[in-house]
Amino acid sequence: MGFQVTIPEGSPFTLHNIPFGVISTDANPEPHCATAIGDYALDLPSYFHSKASDDKCFAPLSCEAIHDIFNQPSLNAFAALPSATRTAIRAHLIDAIQNSTVPGLCLISLFRVRMHLPMRIGGYSDFFCSLEHCQNCSSMTGGVAPNFFHAPSVYNGRVSSIIPSPQPVRRPKGVTYDTGKGSGNPVYGASKKLDFELEMGYFVSEPIAHGETMSIDDAREHIFGFVLLNDWSSRDIQAFEMNPLGPFHSKGFGTSISPWVVTLDALAPFACEPKHDHSAVEFEHLRWKEREVGTFDVELTASLVREQKRYQVTKSNLRWLYWSPYQQLAHHASAGCGLGTGDLLGSGTISGEREGELGCLFEATQGGEKPIRFEDGTSLGYLEDHDEVVLEGWCGEGEARIGFGECTGVLLPASK
Amino acid sequence: MGFQVTIPEGSPFTLHNIPFGVISTDANPEPHCATAIGDYALDLPSYFHSKASDDKCFAPLSCEAIHDIFNQPSLNAFAALPSATRTAIRAHLIDAIQNSTVPGLCLISLFRVRMHLPMRIGGYSDFFCSLEHCQNCSSMTGGVAPNFFHAPSVYNGRVSSIIPSPQPVRRPKGVTYDTGKGSGNPVYGASKKLDFELEMGYFVSEPIAHGETMSIDDAREHIFGFVLLNDWSSRDIQAFEMNPLGPFHSKGFGTSISPWVVTLDALAPFACEPKHDHSAVEFEHLRWKEREVGTFDVELTASLVREQKRYQVTKSNLRWLYWSPYQQLAHHASAGCGLGTGDLLGSGTISGEREGELGCLFEATQGGEKPIRFEDGTSLGYLEDHDEVVLEGWCGEGEARIGFGECTGVLLPASK
Repeated sequence: MGFQVTIPEGSPFTLHNIPFGVISTDANPEPHCATAIGDYALDLPSYFHSKASDDKCFAPLSCEAIHDIFNQPSLNAFAALPSATRTAIRAHLIDAIQNSTVPGLCLISLFRVRMHLPMRIGGYSDFFCSLEHCQNCSSMTGGVAPNFFHAPSVYNGRVSSIIPSPQPVRRPKGVTYDTGKGSGNPVYGASKKLDFELEMGYFVSEPIAHGETMSIDDAREHIFGFVLLNDWSSRDIQAFEMNPLGPFHSKGFGTSISPWVVTLDALAPFACEPKHDHSAVEFEHLRWKEREVGTFDVELTASLVREQKRYQVTKSNLRWLYWSPYQQLAHHASAGCGLGTGDLLGSGTISGEREGELGCLFEATQGGEKPIRFEDGTSLGYLEDHDEVVLEGWCGEGEARIGFGECTGVLLPASK
Repeated sequence: MGFQVTIPEGSPFTLHNIPFGVISTDANPEPHCATAIGDYALDLPSYFHSKASDDKCFAPLSCEAIHDIFNQPSLNAFAALPSATRTAIRAHLIDAIQNSTVPGLCLISLFRVRMHLPMRIGGYSDFFCSLEHCQNCSSMTGGVAPNFFHAPSVYNGRVSSIIPSPQPVRRPKGVTYDTGKGSGNPVYGASKKLDFELEMGYFVSEPIAHGETMSIDDAREHIFGFVLLNDWSSRDIQAFEMNPLGPFHSKGFGTSISPWVVTLDALAPFACEPKHDHSAVEFEHLRWKEREVGTFDVELTASLVREQKRYQVTKSNLRWLYWSPYQQLAHHASAGCGLGTGDLLGSGTISGEREGELGCLFEATQGGEKPIRFEDGTSLGYLEDHDEVVLEGWCGEGEARIGFGECTGVLLPASK
């Protein structure tokens, strides 16, 4: 008989979730795979080692083989398994936790674990797919480009920028115009317009070979799961560099992700219809077959923590995107660039129509001109040193509710 | 006594070169490191294995340790060694070849080796730093942006696009306007405006940590070596997607590099002054201390092979860039994005001022409007299926001459 896990009220990591991540501890400092349940990390190599004599396991895989897959510093080997095998392993873990057959030694308090990047990431692309965000940012991007309505817009990000929550981010130095806008005298120094962007990210499971494309009907087979993503952005560096090549240094200094990957299996009950009706989409490769489950209902918030006080800045929802993650992935694959297991795709900032639903400060403060005033008088224009930004994501209500955990990071002052 | 290598007249791989690459053969199908000399690849794990009893080797490294460093499918471990150690190993190899102490078994005809990507590449960035190219492309980019003159312009490329010469490239499908230009009716299909770009690429040796910057005086310590790079480009996809996020699918389907990395040691005799005098550069991090050796004199050509006939399309020179590789690297590092061993940076297309010196067909044919006519009447607008593009690069004259070998690739028809 193993340990009986009690799941505290309000935990994102219920039996309906079973997210996957990479942890290390003082006792086992080599990063390895785990799942989260309540206030615990379940050490997966330990667990499958404890079952190693059970050779039935997940035929054709022995428990020892599964131990080896999880005893690695990334989830790539697990994500590369057929989705049916991953589904069976997740179902097994739910069963084992529910029936208290997990040895107590495999469960470690979440307070004792360090979180690492969950995947070995070969490529990172970030989309620009929220119509409201695009409209609100049009002063920086020169208006909503006509191409926005034909296909998902996307640029390559920098893999080295990706860090796991709660690692802090340092305010970058860079070249800007002294006006902080798109013209003026160029200066090099610490960015003065530091922003966050409320996004989700998702990881590729089954790869798409270089030169091959993917049918949107198969998109589910190629997505391992979702995380929260904060695309920290420097608006003054961006204003300098944006034309003609797009964002580079303005994004490359830090991109935070929540460390637990919530699988498509866990998200399946929250599949829903996208907010935007563009069923008349021109291109076959972007056309949903099942519009009613074309995206997911994930409630998102971004909050500011300043001097130990927490202020909600925005709320949003994944389903508000104009182009869904399935459409994004299909478009990404449509020109044969190839996608590997562990590649990360960012949804792009997700904004709604109203005040309090804008996914970054550039939008919410009209380029820093109109700071947000909270009830206690605190004012938020762009971010100040030592500000912390916390993203959260939740699906569903009551018993069935699942969450992503926090994606958080403190903004450190620029280096001397 | 070992084998005496005769170096044929016109070989790029003389004793002054000693480039590094990754090969496999039928007899040893696991990719591993080699150097090229004349018409041979010198198998480096075999060579250092043959010397394993010589424990002096390169203190503190034993020959066995160096064997292990080279017995890998990438040059990353070698490139991560201190530059003085790499220099000593190169000098030792020159000495061993010159004195015929290399066992014949370690030398394999270049006709018998398969070439692989030389490095495990974590990030790929491509610059836009030739003033002439920028001016000639201004119709696509909306004019020369003022930021061009203040700092090197750069965007993130896609690592999965990078392939070693002579691997073929497939014409991509993608979304374009039916006009092939920046407006019209969007259509999805095979690109009709397939172009090459004549560039060089260079690999990072000593990493720069996330959040750190680099002084331009230290740039040499962070560059492992150079290759030729063909940034295959689809101009009709680019015209669709360029605004506002920059190039993505138009570049992501294939980027060819020459497979032998020519080290900074080999290039040192060809250090020279850049063509463009912008010593009044505003930013400390871009200011040369030694302008007279601020770049390298590498003569470049791009040729078309069609129906077994070869036509020189353009000639160019690395030193014609407005921003040198050292300045590019310093600017890349200036915002703390971090650079890892094996990261690849593309110089950007290198054009000169005259006809016959333009680095891509978009420039040389004025957007496809004025095809090039060769003497035999052959006409070249954009590339046709089965066209081959061959880049070459050479430094110096006579005995001291070294070359990069070819960067070549055939354009395959789009998939059905």
